[in-house]
Amino acid sequence: MAASALLKSRVRRPSYLNKLAKAEDLIDLFPHGSYIGWSGFTGVGYPKMVPTALADHVEKNNLQGQLKYNLFVGASSGAETENRWARLNMIERRSPHQVGKEIAKGINNGQIKFFDKHLSMFPSDLVYGYYTLDKPKNKIDVAVIEASAITENGGIIPGASVGASPELVQMADKVIIEVNTSSPSFEGLHDIVGSDLPPGRKPYLIMAPEDRIGTSYIPVDPEKVVAVVESNYPDQTQPNAPEDEGSQAIAANLIEFLKHEVHHGRLPPNLLPIQSGIGNIANAVVGGLSKGGANFSNLKVWTEVLQDSFLDLFDSDGFKRFYDNWEKYAGKLLLRSQQVSNSPEIIRRLGVIGMNTPVEVDIYAHANSTCVMGSRMLNGLGGSADFLRNSKYSIMHTPSTRPSKVDPTGVSCIVPFATHIDQTEHDLDVIVTEQGLADVRGLSPRERARVIIKKCSHPDYYPILTDYLDRAEFECLRKGMGHEPHLLFEAFKMHKNLQEKGTMKIDSWE
Amino acid sequence: MAASALLKSRVRRPSYLNKLAKAEDLIDLFPHGSYIGWSGFTGVGYPKMVPTALADHVEKNNLQGQLKYNLFVGASSGAETENRWARLNMIERRSPHQVGKEIAKGINNGQIKFFDKHLSMFPSDLVYGYYTLDKPKNKIDVAVIEASAITENGGIIPGASVGASPELVQMADKVIIEVNTSSPSFEGLHDIVGSDLPPGRKPYLIMAPEDRIGTSYIPVDPEKVVAVVESNYPDQTQPNAPEDEGSQAIAANLIEFLKHEVHHGRLPPNLLPIQSGIGNIANAVVGGLSKGGANFSNLKVWTEVLQDSFLDLFDSDGFKRFYDNWEKYAGKLLLRSQQVSNSPEIIRRLGVIGMNTPVEVDIYAHANSTCVMGSRMLNGLGGSADFLRNSKYSIMHTPSTRPSKVDPTGVSCIVPFATHIDQTEHDLDVIVTEQGLADVRGLSPRERARVIIKKCSHPDYYPILTDYLDRAEFECLRKGMGHEPHLLFEAFKMHKNLQEKGTMKIDSWE
Repeated sequence: MAASALLKSRVRRPSYLNKLAKAEDLIDLFPHGSYIGWSGFTGVGYPKMVPTALADHVEKNNLQGQLKYNLFVGASSGAETENRWARLNMIERRSPHQVGKEIAKGINNGQIKFFDKHLSMFPSDLVYGYYTLDKPKNKIDVAVIEASAITENGGIIPGASVGASPELVQMADKVIIEVNTSSPSFEGLHDIVGSDLPPGRKPYLIMAPEDRIGTSYIPVDPEKVVAVVESNYPDQTQPNAPEDEGSQAIAANLIEFLKHEVHHGRLPPNLLPIQSGIGNIANAVVGGLSKGGANFSNLKVWTEVLQDSFLDLFDSDGFKRFYDNWEKYAGKLLLRSQQVSNSPEIIRRLGVIGMNTPVEVDIYAHANSTCVMGSRMLNGLGGSADFLRNSKYSIMHTPSTRPSKVDPTGVSCIVPFATHIDQTEHDLDVIVTEQGLADVRGLSPRERARVIIKKCSHPDYYPILTDYLDRAEFECLRKGMGHEPHLLFEAFKMHKNLQEKGTMKIDSWE
Repeated sequence: MAASALLKSRVRRPSYLNKLAKAEDLIDLFPHGSYIGWSGFTGVGYPKMVPTALADHVEKNNLQGQLKYNLFVGASSGAETENRWARLNMIERRSPHQVGKEIAKGINNGQIKFFDKHLSMFPSDLVYGYYTLDKPKNKIDVAVIEASAITENGGIIPGASVGASPELVQMADKVIIEVNTSSPSFEGLHDIVGSDLPPGRKPYLIMAPEDRIGTSYIPVDPEKVVAVVESNYPDQTQPNAPEDEGSQAIAANLIEFLKHEVHHGRLPPNLLPIQSGIGNIANAVVGGLSKGGANFSNLKVWTEVLQDSFLDLFDSDGFKRFYDNWEKYAGKLLLRSQQVSNSPEIIRRLGVIGMNTPVEVDIYAHANSTCVMGSRMLNGLGGSADFLRNSKYSIMHTPSTRPSKVDPTGVSCIVPFATHIDQTEHDLDVIVTEQGLADVRGLSPRERARVIIKKCSHPDYYPILTDYLDRAEFECLRKGMGHEPHLLFEAFKMHKNLQEKGTMKIDSWE
């Protein structure tokens, strides 16, 4: 196969050009039951050509359910690949995080064996061999990695994400590289280190977000590279969630709190590195920090994913803007693997301000990040617990209610007992809704419950939650078990009411 | 006051001898409402003279409830001090861990505001000012620290624990030192570093348990030292829990697993550093590793507390044995602060084998480490989550059942839904009981539940738990919410039966 001039300009390792292949000719590398790793993180930098060719093959030959794979991706990939794989019943097992209607459906109807894992821990456990216990040599079969360029020594220069690619390459028997020529080369933007095994693990010597400790590429053993495929599909990123009145009110409460902390000397005037997820609240917070009366300047960011306001830079016009101003922006951005970005070691050292949105938070500050009604998986834990346990400020921001089908405030995000617990009461410092902000640092559970109900709950639920706490305190204190009072056998009554009547507004706790 | 010759030999800072005082003359330093820090960790190295004098003062003058304090101790102190304070209603607030009947009683009847916190995080949050939000300068009032000796520069050489003493000293307005001359000087056994504030925090450059990174003493600003008290009370340590048939069976299952991991190349032949708590199971495991057919040698330990088998060395005869063989033992032991011993950074880097005993574990591998029936506090979280989230192997060992008042197997330690969650499903790798061992690495929740029920549950509960899982799967899968199937509104039925009938053996889930 002849390489295009564009491809040649990206691939500086000559021997790789001899391995040029079309995706549709690689089907035989993927027998049923294979363990496969993909690059990609939060819908960015995932492979497109090979997954699409495999899906086409299954569709064309009616092989649904007959070619199923164990699929590992740093976090979510593109909807057009893994959603399609899910729809075609091509996924036997999946970890650690996913986004997409079809894949969520497959997970929740029992078709896909999914386990979510702390994003910092997934690459470690992978190299420990924990996900390949039954495989010879603990290896995965094939890693398919998207590159924006290839170095002279055969190393992979990723695109706009690194994710778990270093470890997937390290653990793979064979590597296929998709060189994406539709986006520019990202060379110089990455800082990449691999994962050693204990007792040989080393410290991450990062003392500030801008510190470099690694290489600008993922090292690869060239003999493992079985094929190079040219790709010309851009990432299919999702549209930004718009800010609304609620998210702006949450942001305002939070920014007020940060100012208060600066005022009391517990935060420097330019804060500490910010971690912020995706979504309209995150967007409103990050937007609010830099504009209006906030007066914060020279902010630094240490986060697992570029938030929407950043992604603007990379989308359509954003890409052009970024490249036209490379010298202005490139020095302000470093892309790292998830093992490093989500490392408890670094998050604690930097004193990150960590912010996240849950499914629900309970009155004692346990939070559910993953499973609706305790059972239905949304996307997975992601890095929420990496950040919320280790940040200097661990902040949960959420609307106080969400609409149900029949009631605009039918679902309270503040509940007596979270139906699934991913973040514990020992992890959170601040809960904030559009109603107000509860600072629970140093408070006992009963104090915490009072302040969370008072500051954060919606007025429709304030009396219901207060009544729960009053009754639980009465019952438990008289029995001498009142440290964290619960009406254990009524604790999910609001959820039951939601299921049966479409709203959490119960008539009484009796 | 004249110093004894023994005291002079321990206090190398001459100016401190001018501050010699009797404990009973220091009462005025402790007005009602004071924020007080004590040295001590797991009942070792806590101050005795000043707490006893304060308790005598309250008792003699009938001041119960009129002199109440906010008390911070690295972990638990001695029963004869904090238990007595609790009985005399002298504790307003307490964190982060405690042991003792009276203090547990005060916490659970609402008298004491207690919050438990990750032991690694407690000293950080203390220096961040999170526990003194309402105090001027974010300081605590007095730290009372037990020393085994004092250096020329006024630094404190602790006894057999370090705990949070470096940070308590750092954050205290005044410091009182109790020099304990009833035990030998522990000089040379410690490796101590303080806690910087971000953005100035540094890496902990420990690559192996034996690496030293700090000083042999806690630095103190001598002007903060308001009094030095000679103490001649030894630590009142608790008796060891004896091994029994059950704990030996658990240990045997666990050692078999570790051998399996070595055999498959996932662990080196001398394992990786061991973390193990207190109690009969921990004792049986540590005992079993070094004797019998286990064949493990040159083991290393990285742990938060010396287990019973180690404590043997320090108790009565043990102390003598240790000192008679100082050269043999001293080089094998380093004592550090809890911020370092429990540091996620170091635990991950070393690849620790972490082991802990819970109250209960649920079928999806969430664990309760603290609150019986979701409400009644036992001792606190301790370092369980520091180790279980960050260890290479995160292991929960528990008997499959415990006796209730009316049924020798009335309490199942494997339950459908843990009534309080301190460790999440994302944290645990292995659950082991005397029945068997469940290796849940890489498994989806439904797979995990099957293997935990099959391998770990007691035969009396196997059919009950299997029936729960079957029904929950049936209900949730048909509703398309079957990732982690629960009968949410029946999930605590076994606990309800225990409360009402004294056993978790329910007749049916209907």
